[in-house]
Amino acid sequence: MTPLASWNDGSAKSAIVDFVDRVVRDVAPPERVAVFDNDGTLWCEKPAYIQLDFLIRRLAAKAAADPGLAREQPYLAASTADLGWFGAAITRHYQGDDTALKVLAAAVMSLHESMAVEDHAALVSAFFAEATHPTLGRPYRDCVYAPMVELLRYLEDHQFSCYIVSGGARDFMRPVTEAVYGIPPERVVGSAQGLKFTGDSTGHGDLLIQPTLDVFDDGPEKPVRIWSRIGRRPILSAGNSNGDDEMLMYSGRPDASALRLIVLHDDDDREFSYTAGAERLLEHAGAHGWTVVSMKNDWATVFGD
Amino acid sequence: MTPLASWNDGSAKSAIVDFVDRVVRDVAPPERVAVFDNDGTLWCEKPAYIQLDFLIRRLAAKAAADPGLAREQPYLAASTADLGWFGAAITRHYQGDDTALKVLAAAVMSLHESMAVEDHAALVSAFFAEATHPTLGRPYRDCVYAPMVELLRYLEDHQFSCYIVSGGARDFMRPVTEAVYGIPPERVVGSAQGLKFTGDSTGHGDLLIQPTLDVFDDGPEKPVRIWSRIGRRPILSAGNSNGDDEMLMYSGRPDASALRLIVLHDDDDREFSYTAGAERLLEHAGAHGWTVVSMKNDWATVFGD
Repeated sequence: MTPLASWNDGSAKSAIVDFVDRVVRDVAPPERVAVFDNDGTLWCEKPAYIQLDFLIRRLAAKAAADPGLAREQPYLAASTADLGWFGAAITRHYQGDDTALKVLAAAVMSLHESMAVEDHAALVSAFFAEATHPTLGRPYRDCVYAPMVELLRYLEDHQFSCYIVSGGARDFMRPVTEAVYGIPPERVVGSAQGLKFTGDSTGHGDLLIQPTLDVFDDGPEKPVRIWSRIGRRPILSAGNSNGDDEMLMYSGRPDASALRLIVLHDDDDREFSYTAGAERLLEHAGAHGWTVVSMKNDWATVFGD
Repeated sequence: MTPLASWNDGSAKSAIVDFVDRVVRDVAPPERVAVFDNDGTLWCEKPAYIQLDFLIRRLAAKAAADPGLAREQPYLAASTADLGWFGAAITRHYQGDDTALKVLAAAVMSLHESMAVEDHAALVSAFFAEATHPTLGRPYRDCVYAPMVELLRYLEDHQFSCYIVSGGARDFMRPVTEAVYGIPPERVVGSAQGLKFTGDSTGHGDLLIQPTLDVFDDGPEKPVRIWSRIGRRPILSAGNSNGDDEMLMYSGRPDASALRLIVLHDDDDREFSYTAGAERLLEHAGAHGWTVVSMKNDWATVFGD
């Protein structure tokens, strides 16, 4: 099979192929570390994060089991499919008003309180087995970008180790990343709630989810978590929003080559078109010569069919 | 070569071989996760943690560069090689008096403040290139237990993934684990100071060490960090002190087999003999049928020569 067949010929594809050729010549395999943002970089993040759909369904299920809750936010919005309430909570947060987002965050933190991590993983797997994208009309698990999955395989064929480093929840991604990306759970870094070990008198124990935020893996936290998890500096990184800027800056040393990829959402026909939230990243791309990948021009297909 | 040649025939060796035979038959390779404590399990921890020797040398170097400091603790003790002061600080901590340990911890936290993680790694590498164990008369890098290194290779030969999960500092272990254990940095979990990303106007950035504790990877925190890093429950675990108890409890599910190994230091001739700090672990071993490895009886050699 032709390498990167779902990429059109052009500067982005050339930059990838040329970089990998140099790496194979110059960089020892253990140092071939590549990191990928997830939402908007590996899978679709519009009209809302896939994880938000999961959380809304969980909030609605909780309200269905406890009808008194359904009169309060965010359960009311979840129960009535009022997606505008959730969008407004996030929009207002960026405008400096955290009121609704705090109500949402508190409800989300308590959603899986005291649940064992394996039971939570089963809920996520059940979601991905059936949930469908609201406008693309395909299962969420088929909303991954085929050219990026092809890039993961191309890099692995050249002895790269590929990691996901996302602001999304680590334990929301892990149950599905092996199936949709070929990335095993130990290569998934993301945001996380606190966990607490509890043991019993038979010598066994479980990890229970706590109603606290352990880490929000975004912006300057991304390079911190990369070092914590990998202990190496990536030489290739890919992102699509301002929250990926520091991860791309941390990739490569000043005296060595690195490849920094930015997925530009400019394809309203096949996916979505937006740059909101990517302003700083795109400015840095221009200033520092990072590689912008146009979904419209550089990808022969978006979803692989 | 005979598998596990540096292990004497006996119940510990049989338990390992029988377990691995079952795993090869019953467990898919990605689920073959093994976790190992480091101090006292993979390398020698007496008469003091190897990391403490590194820190004392660093404190002494700081005092030499700033003689005013040498009048204060812990710099005074470090400069005069007063190891008793450090031992007493730790002993008093376990007796409920944290005064000296807090003085020590504050000095340790500030030792590498604002240093880039790669520069810290170079200091650690320089230490291991020359530092020698105070009583065994061998370089620290040769104070690793040969039977345990052999066990790591035996497990890897059967498609296990082996991780270190230590209360010791992650970034103190990583520069040397590949050389002494064949364990790469991405498979090393440990305690850590805070890190902060700092970027510059050329589009590059570094991670700088902060004077804060990010995580103390001991006791109930070990299973939490294992899940955070690996996302799978180990099926084999090895430790030697109470701080490993929860990690061993978290290994395996109640309905599936797991192997839990405890390194018992009972060999005053070849290494050291002590059970202080392992009381609860040994009690659990007896109650739950965990496998105790006697250094004296189960190991044909300790350091491989």
